[in-house]
Amino acid sequence: MSEADASSCSADPSAGVTVAVDCNGADLGPGEVAAGAAIAAREGVRTILFGPQAELREAAPEAEIVDAPTSIAKASDPTAAVRATPEASIVEAARTVAAGKAQALVCAGGTGAALAAGIFNIKRARGIYRPALALPLPVPGAHVTLLDVGANVEVRREHLVQFAFMGAALARTVLGVPLPRVGLLSNGEEAGRGSPLVVEVHAQLLERAEAGLDAFEFVGNVEGHDVVEGRADVIVTDGFTGNIALKLMEGVSQTILRAVRDAATSTPRAQLGGMLLRPALRDFRDEIDPESQGGAYLLGLRRIGVVPHGRFTRAGFARAIVVAERGARKDVVGLTHRALSEAGALRSSPASAQAASLPDTG
Amino acid sequence: MSEADASSCSADPSAGVTVAVDCNGADLGPGEVAAGAAIAAREGVRTILFGPQAELREAAPEAEIVDAPTSIAKASDPTAAVRATPEASIVEAARTVAAGKAQALVCAGGTGAALAAGIFNIKRARGIYRPALALPLPVPGAHVTLLDVGANVEVRREHLVQFAFMGAALARTVLGVPLPRVGLLSNGEEAGRGSPLVVEVHAQLLERAEAGLDAFEFVGNVEGHDVVEGRADVIVTDGFTGNIALKLMEGVSQTILRAVRDAATSTPRAQLGGMLLRPALRDFRDEIDPESQGGAYLLGLRRIGVVPHGRFTRAGFARAIVVAERGARKDVVGLTHRALSEAGALRSSPASAQAASLPDTG
Repeated sequence: MSEADASSCSADPSAGVTVAVDCNGADLGPGEVAAGAAIAAREGVRTILFGPQAELREAAPEAEIVDAPTSIAKASDPTAAVRATPEASIVEAARTVAAGKAQALVCAGGTGAALAAGIFNIKRARGIYRPALALPLPVPGAHVTLLDVGANVEVRREHLVQFAFMGAALARTVLGVPLPRVGLLSNGEEAGRGSPLVVEVHAQLLERAEAGLDAFEFVGNVEGHDVVEGRADVIVTDGFTGNIALKLMEGVSQTILRAVRDAATSTPRAQLGGMLLRPALRDFRDEIDPESQGGAYLLGLRRIGVVPHGRFTRAGFARAIVVAERGARKDVVGLTHRALSEAGALRSSPASAQAASLPDTG
Repeated sequence: MSEADASSCSADPSAGVTVAVDCNGADLGPGEVAAGAAIAAREGVRTILFGPQAELREAAPEAEIVDAPTSIAKASDPTAAVRATPEASIVEAARTVAAGKAQALVCAGGTGAALAAGIFNIKRARGIYRPALALPLPVPGAHVTLLDVGANVEVRREHLVQFAFMGAALARTVLGVPLPRVGLLSNGEEAGRGSPLVVEVHAQLLERAEAGLDAFEFVGNVEGHDVVEGRADVIVTDGFTGNIALKLMEGVSQTILRAVRDAATSTPRAQLGGMLLRPALRDFRDEIDPESQGGAYLLGLRRIGVVPHGRFTRAGFARAIVVAERGARKDVVGLTHRALSEAGALRSSPASAQAASLPDTG
């Protein structure tokens, strides 16, 4: 299929959406993911599940299931594993999306495998340099999407510029932010602060914002503390920094919440205090629960993907499936393409550039 | 003074240490810093204070004071301000250290100004490529020092390798960690994960660790969540990533603690719970109080510097002065030099390399 043909598989909003779900890789087992699919089905979302049939059938008796017991979720070299294991559940799921039998991909475990299977089978969207992983952060009272959180350790200027458009399209369609404020993660607010790459990208995004494009509002550089303070709806960074930032946030949250819990068991008086305080804290804990977001979005492919965390429960997997369906139905891919096209930020020579930067296929 | 001569000003442990303190730039005013110096004096630490004399005198009647009312703490271009303002308090304080009248520098406001004044006047230690800012993080139950947190947005391999030694020497002398575990911040634990620069530095540090050097133990890559989980005593990264990580930690901590506080006022029941829980939480809040650490260490100069946060109170400034004195007395600079020398990691051609990479002095 040529690149031009492929772009025509951008979703038709009037058609129904089916989500291909790789159930392997979850900490609680494939059945937990299938149970999530059963919840999503009750919300009207159609799925095709990939994994060990008997286990999936038990958890989701009504589901359409493709028996694919082989998992590469824990493979140390996901790209090699995707190439060497065509029968792996994630590869079968991605191929089903590529063939048009499903319009979105959910992968319950193994971000690397999802990324590699997506690039090889679903392929990158026309004019996109690099797919990126975008994570809606569990920030209380705000929708903050950070990208890239790990797909691209090294980036060039044009990649980061595209990430801004990709993240903005996600925020508009899936998260319901009419005009997303996009910020660039840096070590200072001023336009001149940051690595030479960040300074260049800042200038480029400013230029596009001043040209009156309505894909997003560029709010300039944002600093580490701004990530959780709602100064931007979308925060753009490279996958190295983004991945460190994401895991640091998780680590700090867990450490503090653990310390509060420990304090609340340290003395009888504190224990009583903790008991009385618990209901009021529940809302906050729900708000920062990563499962409530559904996971990271895999953007930049011809179809949208969602990668929930392997340690999620069925509620989180159900959420991942629901938001993947929404992303496909609201056509994140098409919206991203149109915005990039209007901004003149599409990759100009797609075929050759793609050949040059795809992982080496031997 | 030649580079060789200068290195001989490494502290004599038997001699007393005096700390030069720039009192300008603190949010609560120079008097608050002077009050901190008065507290440090009661712990036996000698200081020379730089700032507006009358204000300092009122807060610290016994102190040695140099009247230097001019502040460049808020200068937008600190390097230019240091060059253009020889009468600025931070420049006078740094010159006093360079002249040997004080053996450590504390700057209460303006990290950029402290860095520039330090490089121009105190100058880099022999064989050091780049000074770095090292921050002992307020992690409960652990001493975790992160460097660089903002002095060097762009780094080369040899800089990061030196940062490992600089941070380890600080941890050994000032923080009392006999054999510091040093980790390299990355987006994955495996040696092959990270930017090409990080992968190279990993290999270099592994080599030095295997060569049996006893300056530190190299524990490999550490991820974002490891920062607060005590997997390493010293965590090495570039100033761009380190600065983002630091501010993100502050932002996440504040957001969560604010949410807990809000929850504890939301209902009468929660209010009572919060009241009962408060004493048990106090220890934790004290532990993660940034003032308890004294601030960031400016490492890699011929003398040690400490840069407390401008929003500190007198307790934090007192702590900064006390730890600066300890760093000088325990000879962090000399220990760093010896460890780098044994490891063959000193800059080989100091004079020419320094000339090439010093900020352009016109």
